[in-house]
Order: sequence, then structure tokens, then C-alpha cells
Amino acid sequence: MEGKLIEAQIIETLLLNILNFQTLIATKASRIRFVAGDGTLIDFGLRRAQGLGGYHAGRAAVIGGFDATSNARAARDYHLRPSGTMAHSYIQCHEDELAAFRSFAATRPDDCVLLVDTYNTLESGMPNAITVAREMEKNGHRLKGIRLDSGDLAYLAKRSRAMLDEAGLQYVRIAASNQLDEYVIRSLKAQEAPIDVFGVGTSLVTGRPDAALDGVYKLAQADGRPVIKLSENVSKITLPEKKQVWRAIDDRGMFLGADAVGLDDETDIPVMHHPFVPHQSFAIDRYETEPLLRMVMNGGRIVYDPPSITETARYCRERLEMLPAEYKRFDNPHIYKVGISSRLKELRDRLIAQHKK
Amino acid sequence: MEGKLIEAQIIETLLLNILNFQTLIATKASRIRFVAGDGTLIDFGLRRAQGLGGYHAGRAAVIGGFDATSNARAARDYHLRPSGTMAHSYIQCHEDELAAFRSFAATRPDDCVLLVDTYNTLESGMPNAITVAREMEKNGHRLKGIRLDSGDLAYLAKRSRAMLDEAGLQYVRIAASNQLDEYVIRSLKAQEAPIDVFGVGTSLVTGRPDAALDGVYKLAQADGRPVIKLSENVSKITLPEKKQVWRAIDDRGMFLGADAVGLDDETDIPVMHHPFVPHQSFAIDRYETEPLLRMVMNGGRIVYDPPSITETARYCRERLEMLPAEYKRFDNPHIYKVGISSRLKELRDRLIAQHKK
Repeated sequence: MEGKLIEAQIIETLLLNILNFQTLIATKASRIRFVAGDGTLIDFGLRRAQGLGGYHAGRAAVIGGFDATSNARAARDYHLRPSGTMAHSYIQCHEDELAAFRSFAATRPDDCVLLVDTYNTLESGMPNAITVAREMEKNGHRLKGIRLDSGDLAYLAKRSRAMLDEAGLQYVRIAASNQLDEYVIRSLKAQEAPIDVFGVGTSLVTGRPDAALDGVYKLAQADGRPVIKLSENVSKITLPEKKQVWRAIDDRGMFLGADAVGLDDETDIPVMHHPFVPHQSFAIDRYETEPLLRMVMNGGRIVYDPPSITETARYCRERLEMLPAEYKRFDNPHIYKVGISSRLKELRDRLIAQHKK
Repeated sequence: MEGKLIEAQIIETLLLNILNFQTLIATKASRIRFVAGDGTLIDFGLRRAQGLGGYHAGRAAVIGGFDATSNARAARDYHLRPSGTMAHSYIQCHEDELAAFRSFAATRPDDCVLLVDTYNTLESGMPNAITVAREMEKNGHRLKGIRLDSGDLAYLAKRSRAMLDEAGLQYVRIAASNQLDEYVIRSLKAQEAPIDVFGVGTSLVTGRPDAALDGVYKLAQADGRPVIKLSENVSKITLPEKKQVWRAIDDRGMFLGADAVGLDDETDIPVMHHPFVPHQSFAIDRYETEPLLRMVMNGGRIVYDPPSITETARYCRERLEMLPAEYKRFDNPHIYKVGISSRLKELRDRLIAQHKK
């Protein structure tokens, strides 16, 4: 961004906070979507979120590929799909589990998901849910689903699916929750657990095990002249001047795995250099490139049409489809290369030399 | 808490969110205080916090033992001490480092901390800071401190201290920041790095590596009768009925390391039982005990004097001093025992048996 120094300083922390955190959560959500296939994904995280972080996490989760959130306020404000199921306390405060299920089904006849693990999933919850599902059918309604929230989810989902199918309730969906993350869901998928809906909480909204994305915000130009910050840690030396980032696209229309950072007025970057390692460079002149930075505000006014969350989520999905599989795998993924243009490299090295003398 | 079910449900997520997150951060802060001795601790975390979680993290950090926060809004709202130092961008937008230091010192002659690592800590930042400190002395002011933000903090602090002392600037304090947490600070202390002020960011406000404290909120009584939730995971079986927690104090006035959970009307719990392991029990009748739960709201009104943050922080410190050292060490700490009373155990086991038949 460009602006008066005091303006740039005032929004620094806000911008970093929003971009660092919501990018972290959208990335986590996209990893979970990656393994969940076409399963329905619901954000269940607010109670364990880091304070009000849970509010923005709901938005970021949907951008990253989630379908809905149990956070009613985020759903209202960001036009997300609200979703949730009954609580254990609902069942506990009724005479017994069957009475609780009947009462819940009576108030939500077309949107009823029954939580079956309060007392015993296979001995009590599932038989009672099947009883209520049959009663609902007689009244012209259909039980929407059951939810598993403890125990061995793969085993219980298979047994529950079999019980439902034997009862002619093939249409009842199975939801699961309880400490889910992308690794647990991948394991459930590998075991062919017949789970249709995943409720993901703490790991999603906190990005666990990554507490933060370490984005920074540094001064690159002051009063028209390029500036730099040096550091004993070479990776913390900044890149001077106004810049643009160019992404290379291969002949299949996929990301090549190389982004080149150049000066803002460069439109043709034939070669990109490793930012720190001397003599390592990579020719990108035979590839199509596209600029990644675009103007969204000018003179304090929004100068583009902000997309809806749905459109942003679609864009996220489309771009991730352009990222080759080897960059998306969890174990030893390819590292996306980021290089700098010859002109940017020369400018940076000249500024470093000036400060060293 | 007691209330109508709908009331209890509505505040569930809010209560869990506040208690889980702020307890996590206050605990992290107290671990950092534990190793930092009487060093000054400042929360620098907002830009990397999980969304607005950074706002409440500033409050929790001070409760856990921090002295100040760089989050100006949290400082204003919670009456915390605001604190911060100059940014790299301040230096970069001046003609050179010395000009930047002079300008900063002129505007803050009695509260001036200079960031010395923008170009080269020992070759440029420290000599310039010493020059400015001497100029300030001539005008009757004193440089408050210098801040190190990269490189080998132990080495740079020792060298910087020596340079300051040689220049007769024994009063100038040394602040350090850059990816600090309790382990890094412990290492700096072990190396006798002469650092007076620690700015701690991401690890503090996110609780890294712990993303969340897994507190829960469960129905224990409904319409006057005790209720329970079972689970395949034995540790997720709830304890029924209104309860009180008693903490045992040993004859030195220290926590014994044993909390007994009993029914609310029990005032004398001679023996506490392991919640899950049969035949494990522990006699606490020869120890003094004190109840931990107290009424803070009644009928929607606050019925006690809410302490200030300073008082809460002092209470936190005093209570931690009552916790024996072996519970506070980082590696293989003692586990604080929590047991249940005979009456509570009987009630729980009876309810389990009822649901099993």
C-alpha cells in the first residue's frame, strides 16, 4: 500500500491481523476440504476459539471450503449457512433419550439430526433414533441424520450405517464430530467410514498445530526513494521499492510452481533469481505469467467490486485446482519457488552495499 | 451455574470461549513470568493474534504476570499499562539511522527506546544510540533503553551492555524481542544475557504450542434431579449434581496437590477417590481445605466486588507461589491430583448403572 506514513502505520496491525489469521484458517479449511472429498463440512469451533477470533474463523473456513458454521453471528453477518445439531444437555434434561428425540423431531420435523452417543450409541442412541425415524415417516417427514460425537468413529459409523440401512432408512445421513482434523478425516476416509457430514472445531478455528502465519509489513519506499531493512537473519532482509508478483502458468494451465517478484514497472521478467542463494536462477520467459497484485482501494475508496463470500470460496477452489498435487500432499510437499527479478536483485544488493560501507 | 435451560444454553459458548482462551493465555504468561524473574514483560502480539483474540489476550497476559501491552485499545479498556518502542519503518523513512534516532529522542526525551538492528546492531545501531544518549544527557534527559530485534540475542545483549557501560550509560536498559517464548527466555537467562525487558508476541497471544484449553460445560442437574452423560471415552463421562471443589493445603500453607470434587452440600470430605481407577483413594481429612467455587452472580446481578486487573494479577501470583515447584517445572512436572468424594462417586456410579440396564 501507499500512503502517508502515519496512515500506513495505523492500519499495519489491523491488516496483518486480518490477513495472517484468516489466511491461516482458510488454508486449514482447504486442507480439510482436500481430504473430505464431497463430504459436508461444518465449523463447530467457537467455544474453543481464541476469543473473538472464532467470529472471523467462521468466514475464513467457508472461503477455504467449508459449507456452514455453527457460529450464528458470523453466519448472519457474512451470509454463511448456519448449521448445528442438538446438544447432550437437550437429551439429559428429558425423561429419557427416546422422549428427547421425539420432542426434538416434533419441533424440527424437516431438519432433525439426532445426537446418539449420550448414553450408548449402538445399544440406545441408534435404536431410539430408528424408532423416531419410523414415527416421522408415518407423519410424512424424514429424519435428516444422526450424529456421532465420541468413541471409534469409523467403527460406529459402519455399524450405524448398517442399522439404518437394515431399517430401510438409507436416506438418513451420518454426521461425526470429536477432535477432528485433516489427519483424522483422512484416516476415516481410508477406512471407508460412511460419514457424510464432519463437524470440525478446535483444530479448524485455531489452525492447530500452526498458531500463526508469520506475515510481515515493511517499509519499501519513503519520499520516493527505495529503502531496506537489513538483518543478521538473511531471510529477514526486506525487498525495496514498489513491487508486483508474477505467477508462471504451464502449458496445461497449471501453476508452474514459480512466482517472480519484480519492480512495479517491470512487465517482462525473463529470469528469476533465488532471493538469498547466489547463482541460482530459473528462466520463466517461455511461460505465461499473470500479475497477482491488483488495486482494490485508491484514495480511500474501494475501486473494485468486492466479491461475495461464495464467489471468493469458488475462486479459492478454482485456484487450488490449478496447484499441482505434489504441492498439496501433506508429507514432504514440493516447495513453491519464489524468486526475484534481476532489476530488483540489483537494487537490493546496491542498498545492502550502501549500508555496509 | 443454575438457570433456565435456554439461559444456560445461550451463555454456554460465550463462557467457554472466555474461560478457555483467557485461562490458556494467562497460563502461558505465568510460565513466561516464571522464567523471566523480575524482568519487564510486554505483550507484543496483536499483529499475529488470532483475530480479535489479541484484545482479550492483552488482559489475560497481565493477569498471568505481564507488565504491559502494546495493544493500545486493550490498555485503554482494561486500564493496563500501554508500552511499545519505535518501528523499523521509522528509521527507514529518515535520511539515516542517526537522524531517525535524534528525531525520535527529540519527541520523546524521557521515554525513548531506540531500535538498533535496522542496519547493523553493533556497527551502526549501538554507536548511533550512544551518540544520541550523550546528546540527550547534555539536554538533561536520559535514554531509557535500546531494543534488539534479531540476531543472537544473548551475544548482542552482552556486547551492547559492554558498549553502554564503557560509555558511562549504565542506566540505559536493554530490551529484546523476536520469537520469544518461555524456553528462549529461560535459555537467555541461563546464558546471563543482560536483558531487562522482553517483548513477547505470537507465542504469548496464541498460547503456542497449545491451541486451546479443552474446558467443557455440561448439564449436571435438570428439574431437580441429577443427570449424567456417558461416553465410550471414560474421561468424558460427566459428574452429576451441583458440586463444590475443595483444595487441600499442607502444614506449610502450600497446595498439597489434591483437589476434591464433592456434592454442593458436603462440607467434610475425608477421602477422595480417583475418578476412573477403582480402589485408588487418598485421605485428605488431616489437611486444611478451602472451597474454590464462590457465588459471583445471583439472579442476574453481580453479588461480589469484581477485583481490578491489578488485584487479579496479584491473586494469581500469590496462588502460584502456593504451588510447589515440582508442579511448575517444564519437564515432567508433577500432576495435580483431582478426586471425587464418596457420595459423588456413589451417585455417579448409580446413574451409570441405571443407564446400562
